[in-house]
Amino acid sequence: MTIEELRIRIDELDRQLVELLNERARAAQMIGRMKAATSLPVYEPDRERIVYANVRAANKGPLPDIELTHIYERIIDVMRALQRNELASQRQAQSAAQEGGAPGHAAGEDAPETGKKS
Amino acid sequence: MTIEELRIRIDELDRQLVELLNERARAAQMIGRMKAATSLPVYEPDRERIVYANVRAANKGPLPDIELTHIYERIIDVMRALQRNELASQRQAQSAAQEGGAPGHAAGEDAPETGKKS
Repeated sequence: MTIEELRIRIDELDRQLVELLNERARAAQMIGRMKAATSLPVYEPDRERIVYANVRAANKGPLPDIELTHIYERIIDVMRALQRNELASQRQAQSAAQEGGAPGHAAGEDAPETGKKS
Repeated sequence: MTIEELRIRIDELDRQLVELLNERARAAQMIGRMKAATSLPVYEPDRERIVYANVRAANKGPLPDIELTHIYERIIDVMRALQRNELASQRQAQSAAQEGGAPGHAAGEDAPETGKKS
């Protein structure tokens, strides 16, 4: 394989990674909505420990666990931010509804903080 | 879907992500070896720009481009470190061979800096 062919393969892998990351983000958003309904906190250290353990268990290399963990710290940071936005827009919508505010800007799928090209 | 079901799905997505990240790492390592042979630098800003553009073009959300870029900055950092290690162990092997050193510790697939459970 030439460098050029390997790069074509990397670009293909990146497109698959982007799709999986977005699918993971969608699941995290859904959990965020459920947390809003049940008053669960966004930050759940026990759950995060399970995520890291699962990632290390699935790791067959060549990435060392420590480097994979570095990547996952960033992934989890981003997902947590997404969930916080989801929660915030849910609560905004709830308080607007309670105050009988104008429903002109519905929260949820199209919240500007979380939605992209939605 | 319950939170529990969504988490099972996330764990499954994470295992797929780990596999793709390792496949990407293997390709980066192979490129590292080729760079050692051709004296190309590890850091190639033009190539990195292409990677980011590809990632943004593939992004259909809900992750905003900026958050996806945050994750990719970490991925690229890790891959660059892996390539540097690959290059270093290649060069070590080359100079050991030139000096007629003991071939007891061959560089490559099993280099301790890069290999994991190899």
